[in-house]
Amino acid sequence: MSSLATPTDVLAARMARARSLMADRGVDVLLLSVGPDLPYLTAYEAMPLERLTMLVLPRDGEATLVVPRLEAPRVTEHPGVFTLSAWGETDDPVARVAHLVGSAEVAAVGDHTWARFLVDLLAVRPLQVRRGVEVMGPLRIAKDAAEVALLRRAGAAADRVAAQLQAGAIPLVGRTEAQVSADLSQRLRDEGHERVNFAIVAAGDHAASPHHTPGSRVIRPGDVVLTDFGGRREGYCSDITRCVSLGPPSAEVAEAYAVLQEAQAAAVRAATVGTPCEEVDATARRIIAAAGHGEHFIHRTGHGIGMEEHEDPYLVEGNPLPLAPGHAFSIEPGIYVAGRFGLRLEDIVVATEAGPEPMNHAVHDLVVVDA
Amino acid sequence: MSSLATPTDVLAARMARARSLMADRGVDVLLLSVGPDLPYLTAYEAMPLERLTMLVLPRDGEATLVVPRLEAPRVTEHPGVFTLSAWGETDDPVARVAHLVGSAEVAAVGDHTWARFLVDLLAVRPLQVRRGVEVMGPLRIAKDAAEVALLRRAGAAADRVAAQLQAGAIPLVGRTEAQVSADLSQRLRDEGHERVNFAIVAAGDHAASPHHTPGSRVIRPGDVVLTDFGGRREGYCSDITRCVSLGPPSAEVAEAYAVLQEAQAAAVRAATVGTPCEEVDATARRIIAAAGHGEHFIHRTGHGIGMEEHEDPYLVEGNPLPLAPGHAFSIEPGIYVAGRFGLRLEDIVVATEAGPEPMNHAVHDLVVVDA
Repeated sequence: MSSLATPTDVLAARMARARSLMADRGVDVLLLSVGPDLPYLTAYEAMPLERLTMLVLPRDGEATLVVPRLEAPRVTEHPGVFTLSAWGETDDPVARVAHLVGSAEVAAVGDHTWARFLVDLLAVRPLQVRRGVEVMGPLRIAKDAAEVALLRRAGAAADRVAAQLQAGAIPLVGRTEAQVSADLSQRLRDEGHERVNFAIVAAGDHAASPHHTPGSRVIRPGDVVLTDFGGRREGYCSDITRCVSLGPPSAEVAEAYAVLQEAQAAAVRAATVGTPCEEVDATARRIIAAAGHGEHFIHRTGHGIGMEEHEDPYLVEGNPLPLAPGHAFSIEPGIYVAGRFGLRLEDIVVATEAGPEPMNHAVHDLVVVDA
Repeated sequence: MSSLATPTDVLAARMARARSLMADRGVDVLLLSVGPDLPYLTAYEAMPLERLTMLVLPRDGEATLVVPRLEAPRVTEHPGVFTLSAWGETDDPVARVAHLVGSAEVAAVGDHTWARFLVDLLAVRPLQVRRGVEVMGPLRIAKDAAEVALLRRAGAAADRVAAQLQAGAIPLVGRTEAQVSADLSQRLRDEGHERVNFAIVAAGDHAASPHHTPGSRVIRPGDVVLTDFGGRREGYCSDITRCVSLGPPSAEVAEAYAVLQEAQAAAVRAATVGTPCEEVDATARRIIAAAGHGEHFIHRTGHGIGMEEHEDPYLVEGNPLPLAPGHAFSIEPGIYVAGRFGLRLEDIVVATEAGPEPMNHAVHDLVVVDA
């Protein structure tokens, strides 16, 4: 993706809301570079390279997209939304940004902006700096109908890969975790993902590490295999976790999985508009703790998702934010017993006035695949 | 790659040199997060996610790697080099970093660190900030023999894909640029790349935009097709550009390519130890300008390469840095005529006492492929 297909009027409306939020929060200028904030406002994604791309959005002035000249042809222009300022190979883009910043005193800087550019800018133009999420967070957290449709399509694509896994159509036994990871990645691309963000494959006790890196371990009959994969499709992200058992699981694993499945389903049901994020987390945690696995659930219940794989809102203890229509997030409790096994079950869910709408529908059971 | 195989003694030596550079430059503490600086010193690559990973390296104290608890199992420990400080889901990692910063006044911050963490840190612990490259640049720019061996292997892998293209083994006619891009990407992965960074495919006049995004244009007989692809293999990057012509090229294109090929070869020969970076750029530029194409060469001649696709040294006007043994960089002049055609030819080269050593050996001619 170099440019999203977002219509000009949608971009203009988003930029107007950004200016309004800047006024509320006392931000004079918004500076956005790499990461999803920039395409959200301009439909253009900066290349994550050493040549600076930066949108300078003064609260009361015209927005200017400072872009390397040789990347300028990638930009789809949106008249009335922003103007282009292309810089050449021997120009100083930081000086150009400093000039556009004008008399601003308070700058909100996009969260993913490389520190080097902020350090260079502050050296020539001292500013009071704040996090870009103060402005962009309230905008991006509530997905509109077009964005939810894209999340639904990304989820359906990931579901189809999960269904292949559960149907035994993806060879597991005799292959390494890394080989299965590459296979899952390819299938995500075949299903239209322009980028694969991760494809965790963890066999047996390896799954006790939630972010295990797939390696040279060969998958064997009897293994329970945890897979957690996702990426970006048409600019929006997928993320799904399913476990399969190569042959009947042990009683210990089967019992833990039943607890996990109940906890995950209860947390999905709890994710209604108005419910605090931490309460969704607590819902899953109570069920897992009541079964004696409290100490084995070592991470939060979920993260927001959209143009970014992880974004607001986070379903974590200490986050009182009430869910609102259009909030999109993962619900992915886990049970990890070091040296023995690890289990996780994850769907993406969108909060709507009609109740929680899952973006994933692949079978939730611990499917037994013939070994 | 979660961990590189770099031996503990190599990491310890690098860290000692980092401390020495910090002393030279008046830096009290080095803060490294996402990006290649961290694996260079610790062999561990941070996940580019919202949970903070940060190495805190005081000039005179112990190095501490602050890492999310659920990613801690991914870290290969190197006793005597750094200690781990794992934080839990409800801990405040920025407060932990601020504590480890101690009485430091001047911090060098890794270039790719997300601005959000720097903004949060400065809010709780004011610091004079400098760019991490001041410390890490002089270290990473000079590749040791083991690093050059990895660049050579990455280059050989990219060469094999280029050879397939030049042999006509990759279908072009009737496919879209995007399809050929996906094909090249898959072949890079098949050749051992763990990550594809880009696979530019630009047909006909599309190639006049150096960073063209491969799209829906169908490649036709008669097209000259520019391909520029690379990625990361065993932690080090490849990057190669070759053009092929689907049938005999026009006289205009053939003449321009002959100029380009001469300019590229001359710049490679000029890349000897002691030569200023800008002089390598000027060597290519003089030849292209003398042929009347000066205004059509719209970018610098090259960029450094290593763990990062683009890093120091940059072969650009205004950079007087003399090349030194172990400097690794692209040499990639181009000729771009808007609305007509674009040509570029690129090899990775390492400066050595024995002269410039190319990492790429794929045929340099404008190979004619049967249409």
